[in-house]
Amino acid sequence: MKKLLSAFLMCAGLQAAAQNKPHQNLVQYVKPIIGTQRMGHTYPGATVPFGMVQLSPETDTASYELNGKYNPRVYEYCAGYQYEDKTIVGFSHTHFSGTGHSDLGDFLIMPTVGALKLNPGVADKPGSGYRSAFSHTNEVSAANYYKVKLDESNITAEMTTSTRVGFHQYTFPKSDQSHIILDLMAGIYNYPDKTVWTYVKILNDSTLVGYRQTNGWARTRNLYFAMAFNKKFMQHGFKKYDKREVYGGFWGKFNQSKNFPEIAGKQIRAYFDFKTEEGEKIKIKFALSPVSMDGAMANMQAEVPGWDFDKVKTDGQAQWEKELEKIQVNASVERKQDFYTAMYHTMINPTIYMDADGQYKGLDQNIHKAEGFTNYTTFSLWDTYRALHPLFNMIQPQRNADMVKSMMVHFEQSPERMLPVWSNSANENWCMSGYHSVSVIADAVVKGNAPFDAEKALAACVETARHRSYEGIGDYIDKGYIPDEKTGVSVSNTLEYAYDDWAIAQMAKKLGKTEIYNEFIKRSENYKNVYDPSVGFMRPKKADGTFRAKFDPLSTINEGFIEGNSWNYTLFAPQDPQGLIKLMGGNARFVRYLDSLFTMNLPDKYFAETEDITRDGIIGNYVHGNEPSHHVAYLYNWTDKPWKTQERIRMILPRMYKPTPDGLGGNDDTGQMSAWYIFSSMGFYPVAPGSVDYSIGSPSVNSATIQVGNGKTFNITVKNQSEKNVYVQKMTLNGKPYPALTLSHQDIMNGGEMVFYMSSKHK
Amino acid sequence: MKKLLSAFLMCAGLQAAAQNKPHQNLVQYVKPIIGTQRMGHTYPGATVPFGMVQLSPETDTASYELNGKYNPRVYEYCAGYQYEDKTIVGFSHTHFSGTGHSDLGDFLIMPTVGALKLNPGVADKPGSGYRSAFSHTNEVSAANYYKVKLDESNITAEMTTSTRVGFHQYTFPKSDQSHIILDLMAGIYNYPDKTVWTYVKILNDSTLVGYRQTNGWARTRNLYFAMAFNKKFMQHGFKKYDKREVYGGFWGKFNQSKNFPEIAGKQIRAYFDFKTEEGEKIKIKFALSPVSMDGAMANMQAEVPGWDFDKVKTDGQAQWEKELEKIQVNASVERKQDFYTAMYHTMINPTIYMDADGQYKGLDQNIHKAEGFTNYTTFSLWDTYRALHPLFNMIQPQRNADMVKSMMVHFEQSPERMLPVWSNSANENWCMSGYHSVSVIADAVVKGNAPFDAEKALAACVETARHRSYEGIGDYIDKGYIPDEKTGVSVSNTLEYAYDDWAIAQMAKKLGKTEIYNEFIKRSENYKNVYDPSVGFMRPKKADGTFRAKFDPLSTINEGFIEGNSWNYTLFAPQDPQGLIKLMGGNARFVRYLDSLFTMNLPDKYFAETEDITRDGIIGNYVHGNEPSHHVAYLYNWTDKPWKTQERIRMILPRMYKPTPDGLGGNDDTGQMSAWYIFSSMGFYPVAPGSVDYSIGSPSVNSATIQVGNGKTFNITVKNQSEKNVYVQKMTLNGKPYPALTLSHQDIMNGGEMVFYMSSKHK
Repeated sequence: MKKLLSAFLMCAGLQAAAQNKPHQNLVQYVKPIIGTQRMGHTYPGATVPFGMVQLSPETDTASYELNGKYNPRVYEYCAGYQYEDKTIVGFSHTHFSGTGHSDLGDFLIMPTVGALKLNPGVADKPGSGYRSAFSHTNEVSAANYYKVKLDESNITAEMTTSTRVGFHQYTFPKSDQSHIILDLMAGIYNYPDKTVWTYVKILNDSTLVGYRQTNGWARTRNLYFAMAFNKKFMQHGFKKYDKREVYGGFWGKFNQSKNFPEIAGKQIRAYFDFKTEEGEKIKIKFALSPVSMDGAMANMQAEVPGWDFDKVKTDGQAQWEKELEKIQVNASVERKQDFYTAMYHTMINPTIYMDADGQYKGLDQNIHKAEGFTNYTTFSLWDTYRALHPLFNMIQPQRNADMVKSMMVHFEQSPERMLPVWSNSANENWCMSGYHSVSVIADAVVKGNAPFDAEKALAACVETARHRSYEGIGDYIDKGYIPDEKTGVSVSNTLEYAYDDWAIAQMAKKLGKTEIYNEFIKRSENYKNVYDPSVGFMRPKKADGTFRAKFDPLSTINEGFIEGNSWNYTLFAPQDPQGLIKLMGGNARFVRYLDSLFTMNLPDKYFAETEDITRDGIIGNYVHGNEPSHHVAYLYNWTDKPWKTQERIRMILPRMYKPTPDGLGGNDDTGQMSAWYIFSSMGFYPVAPGSVDYSIGSPSVNSATIQVGNGKTFNITVKNQSEKNVYVQKMTLNGKPYPALTLSHQDIMNGGEMVFYMSSKHK
Repeated sequence: MKKLLSAFLMCAGLQAAAQNKPHQNLVQYVKPIIGTQRMGHTYPGATVPFGMVQLSPETDTASYELNGKYNPRVYEYCAGYQYEDKTIVGFSHTHFSGTGHSDLGDFLIMPTVGALKLNPGVADKPGSGYRSAFSHTNEVSAANYYKVKLDESNITAEMTTSTRVGFHQYTFPKSDQSHIILDLMAGIYNYPDKTVWTYVKILNDSTLVGYRQTNGWARTRNLYFAMAFNKKFMQHGFKKYDKREVYGGFWGKFNQSKNFPEIAGKQIRAYFDFKTEEGEKIKIKFALSPVSMDGAMANMQAEVPGWDFDKVKTDGQAQWEKELEKIQVNASVERKQDFYTAMYHTMINPTIYMDADGQYKGLDQNIHKAEGFTNYTTFSLWDTYRALHPLFNMIQPQRNADMVKSMMVHFEQSPERMLPVWSNSANENWCMSGYHSVSVIADAVVKGNAPFDAEKALAACVETARHRSYEGIGDYIDKGYIPDEKTGVSVSNTLEYAYDDWAIAQMAKKLGKTEIYNEFIKRSENYKNVYDPSVGFMRPKKADGTFRAKFDPLSTINEGFIEGNSWNYTLFAPQDPQGLIKLMGGNARFVRYLDSLFTMNLPDKYFAETEDITRDGIIGNYVHGNEPSHHVAYLYNWTDKPWKTQERIRMILPRMYKPTPDGLGGNDDTGQMSAWYIFSSMGFYPVAPGSVDYSIGSPSVNSATIQVGNGKTFNITVKNQSEKNVYVQKMTLNGKPYPALTLSHQDIMNGGEMVFYMSSKHK
C-alpha cells in the first residue's frame, strides 16, 4: 500500500512538474519586435513580467519642438523605437508598452569609442553625435534580452533586467578612448522644462547614485537611481547645459567638469572613461527606485548582488516561461508567436511600483510602505478594464487582487478621493472617459477573486461615481446624461458611466447592498438617454433635452465621443445588449446595423481623423485599433445570427495580429489589444466585465490548456480546426453537450474539458 | 546643623534664581529694526533664538530682472526689508540675517480685503496689487513679535514664532471679501527658474500642506510646509502662471482653479476666502520642515498645538530673555539697546535644521536622523569664525558643540569630503575664502568645549586642508602660496589658509598629534610668502615667484583679495602679530602703518569699490563693515602703544553701532559684526580664535556680568567710565593687579571679578 501510495504521489509530483516543464520553451515564441513598426507603440527591449525597469533602445528621443515648432513625429515615439529607423540614440530604463502618448525614457545610456561626443547628433548625419547606426540583421529582441551591434563603435550592446535593475553588457573593441555616456537630459517626448531637476553623486570610482524629476505624463515625478560598473572608470565628467546658474560662481573653486563628485541642474550629461581591450565587456547594473537613492542601492543589492549577466537573463526568462505556461496552446509557429507575444504584452503593464522593502511614493506625495500587497502603477484603465483585467482574474488572480489594493491606496491617498482613471508614478492625469476602476474591482468581486476588503472597495467605487465635480457626473446624476454644452465627450462619457454604474450594481448585489444596487442599476440605463431614435444613433444631447443639430455619426471630431465615432459608440452598452437591441429597433435592424458597420465603405476623410491606428486597423467602419468596439463583434450573439460573431472574430484575428514588426493594427494599449487576442483566439471574450459570463466566439487555436490554479486546468480542444472552418457547429463541456452562447467564469475555474466542433458552414 | 544646611541651600537656590530673574526684562532693549536701513541687511520680523522660522515682512521681493535687465536693487533686499520703503508685499517665513547676498523669503502670506488681486503690484502704484502701504508709526518690531497696520486693507498684522512654526494673527475689518493669499512664486532674489517646483495639497477646509523646491543660495533645496487656519475658509483657489503645461489637458476634467484639492507647478499662487466681522482675528499656523509635509505637520503639533497667539509670543520672548541674561550689562538705555540687539543678532544664525523628531536632509541629499545633537545650518564661516563662534564658546557652549557636530555630519555627508565653507539647507556653495570650519573646531577644542570626537574632528580638518583640488590648496602646499595666475583671490586665500593651518596646529598640539602640529605650524608661516618688502604690502605673487607688476594696495578689485584691499589684508596674520611686525619692519614702522590705516584720506573712487558697507563703515582706510579688519584695532597691543588699541576701539564702537534703523555700518553678516560689538564693549576680543587668549581693549559698558555656566559668573566692573575716559589705567583680576594685555578663556570660565580703572590719559 505504502509503495503504491508513494508511487502515486510520485506520479502526481511528476504530473505537477509536467505542467510547468521548462523545456516547453514557450519563451522562444515571444517576439517583442511585434508592434514596433507604425502604430503598435511597443518596444523591443528587455523586461521581466510587470517589471519596474523596461530597458530598451531609443531610435529617437523625439523632442517636443523641432526648429521651434511642434514635432509631429513625437507621437510615433511613444515607446522610443520605430522599426524603420536606422540609428539608435541609446538605451533607457523606462518605457510604456503600446500607449497612445509619449513619456518616460529615463536615464539614457550609450557606449562609444573615440573622441567624446556628448550630443546625440542627428539621425541623417552619422558621426554627428553619440548615436549610432545599426541594422536589424545584428539585432536580437527576446523576452528579457535585447542585443544589437552599434555600427559606429563596433560595440555589441546586450541588456537584460530583474524587476528593479537593468543590466547592461557592452562588448568593446580595443580602445584607449572608451566611454559610457549617461544622458539625464534625454527622455521620450522631451519638451522644454520636462526635466524639472536632476542630481548625480559619485560614490566611488565605479558607483554613482542620483535622481531625475520630471513633469510629464506624471505631473510630479521623481525617479531615483543607483548605477554600478564592473570596472573602475579612469575618470568621469559632467556637462551642464542649463541656461542660467545664479550663485554658481563659487563652485568655480573646483573644476566641476572633471572628476567632481556631484552635480545638480536641469540639463545634465555625464560620461565615464575607460581603456578597453578587444572584446572586453563593460557591465553596468542600473537600479531604480520611486523612493530614494538609498532605495535604489538597496534594490540593486537585493536583486542583482553579482555580475553574472547570463544568470539575470535566464532568471528573468524563467519568470516569463512560468507566466507563459499558464496558457499552453497548440497552433502553428506563427500563431504561437502571435499568441505568446500577446501573452508577453499583457504582462508588462501595470508595473511594480515599490522598493524591495515595500516602500513607495503615494498619490499624496508622501512615502508609504505596502503592507501585505505588491504596489503597482501605470493603470491605463479605459483600455485595460475591458479584457486585460478579466484575463488577470483568470490567470493572474493574485496580481489582479494586488492591483485592486494598489487602486485602493491610490483612492485613499489621492487628494481628490477618486479611484484611478489613468494613473502613473504617484500621479493621476484623468486621461480618457469613465471611472473604469469600478469595472476592474467589480469583475474581481463577482468572480470571487477578492482577497481584499470588498465593502471598502465598493464604498470607494460609489464615492468615485458620485464625485459630482468630475467631468459632468453632477449633470449625469441630475439629468441622466451629460449635456453637450458641458464637455466635448458628453456621449461617450454618458455611455461609459452607465456601464460602470452597472458594474457597481453587480458588485453591490453580490455584497447584498440593495440600496446601492438600486441606485446604480437605475443609473446603468442612462445609456438610453443619449440615443436618438430619429437617426438611430447615440447623439450629443443639449441641456434643454433636445439633440444637437450638427451631427455626423461617422466623424470622431467634436461629435461628443472620444476615440470613436457614433457608429461605433452607439453599440456601447455591453451591460445590456438586449436593451440596446430593443432600443435600436429590434433584432433585424440591429443585425443590419452590425453588418453595415463591418462592411460599409468609410470615406477617406474619416481615416485621417482616426487616432492611434493604421488603415488596416479598420474593417469597414469597425475600428479594432481603438477600444470602444472591442466587444462589438460578439454582439451578434444576442441576435438570431450568432454565427456572424464567429465569422467576424475569425476575420479580425488574422487581419489585426501578425507576427511581424507591423503586426499590430493599432496601439497595443498596455496589453488590451493583446488580451483581446488571447481570449478571442481561445473562443470566448468578456463582453461585460462585472458579469461572470464570457461570450462564445470562434477559437483559432487547435487547443488550449489554461492553468486556473490549484493544479487545475481548463482544456479547450478544437475539432476540425482550419482557416475555413470558422463556424462552431457544436460544443461539449466535460463531455456533455453545451448549447449556451456564454461560458461562465466558474466553469473555467473549476477546470474541465471544452470541445469545439468546427465547420465551414454555419448552423 | 540641619537647619543651617537647609537654610544655606535655600539661599543658594534663591541666589541661582536671582541670576535669571525674568523681571529684568532685557528683551525690552532688543530693537530688531536696527540695521534694516541701508546696508545692515537685518530684518524686523519675529524669530526665536536660532529658530528655523524667521517670519518677517518683505517691502520688496526684488526680482533678478527688471525690464529684462539685472535689477541692481536686488542687493538691498538681502533680508527683504528696506526701512525707507513705503509698502509691504507680504510676510514670508525664512530670512537670512545680515548676509551680503539675497535668498530665501519662502511662502509669502498676505491678507487683503475687497476684490481679489493675486499680483503683488508695484510700490509706486497703491492698489495695483495685493501689496499695501504702511507707516513706521503703526509698526512694532520686537524680539519674537512684529506688528504692522496695512493701510490698504486696514488689517492689523501680527506675527510671532516657535522654533519651527510661524504664527500669524490678522485682525480684519468687516468684509464679505476677506482673503489670505499664499504666494509660492514670491521669493527674495527671485530670478527666473529659481522656483524649481512647488506643490500644494488641501487636507480640509482649514488645513493644507505642500513644498517649495528652489535653486538658489542652496542649489538643491526643498522646504516643506503645513498651514492651518483657526477658521474654515469659505472657498479657496489656485492660479498657475507656468508658461507651458504639457499633458495638462485632462486636468480640465475638474475646474482646478476653484476648491480643487491640489496643484503642482513652477509658478503658483493660492488664495483663501473668508467673511469677517469687524475686528475678527484670522490666525494662521505655518510650520516648516526640511524633510517632508508629514514632518511639517508633526512640527506644528509638537510646538503649537493650540491657538494662543500670546502664549507663543511670550514663550518665545522668555527664550530670548534667558539667552540675553547670559550677559547682563550696566549702561545707558541706548547702549543697552545696542548691546542687547547685538546679542539678539548673534543668536539668529546658524539656524536649527531638523524636525522635532530629529530628522534632517543631509549634504548627500538623503534623509538622516540627528542622534544626540541638534543639527544646524546656515554657516557663513568666513564671517563667523572670528568672534561669533568664540562668543558661543563662552555663553553657548552646548550650541557651539552641536554646531561642530553639524559641521562634522556635513563633512561626512558631503560628496567632496570637506568641512563647511558657506553651507545652507543641505547644500554647500563655497562662498568666500579659507576653510574656517577648522578655526571654529580648533577654538572649541583648545578652550575645552569639545564634547565631541576631537580626534575625528581634527582628521576632518586635516583632510579639508589637504584637499588639493580646492581653490589653490595644491599650489599652496607645493609653493607655500597660491600663484596669482590660479585665482583672483590668491593673496587673501594664502593669508587665510595660513591662519587656518595655525588653528589646526593648535588643536593638534592640544591632542598631542605632533606630526600634524609640525606640518601645519609650518604651513601657518606661509603668510610671509606673499609679503613684498619692497613695497611693504601683501601682494599677488606669480607662479615664477616674482610679484605681479600691476598692483594698487588701495583697490579691492582684481588685486588678489576678497572684500578688502591690501592695506587691510596686509595685517591679516592674527596667529602671529609679532612675526608680522618683524616682517613689516618692526615696532615703529608697524605703528605708523596702523596709524595711517585709521587716519589716511581714502580717495573717493575706492569707496565705490567697497562692497557691503556704507561710507560711515570706513574710518580712514579701515573698513569695519567688512570682516578682514576686525582684529586690526587690537594689533597695537603687540606694539609699544597698546593705548592706541583702547583709543581706536572706543572710536569704532559709537561710530559703527547706533540704536537706529541705519545703526549698522555694514552687513551684520549673520552676527559677526554684533559679536565684535559684544566683546569689544566688554573690553576684550578673540584676535586669534584657536588661542585661549583674548586681547584687551577698552570697555564701553559700566559693568558686565557673564553667566559662564555652572552658576558661575565673570563680572566686569569699569571704574571712572566715561566717553572721555577711554584709556585703561590699570586692571585687577579677583582683587590682584593684572598687568597683562591678554585675558585667558579659563580666567573667564572660572568666574571672577575683573575691574578696569579708566582714565582720559593713556599711560
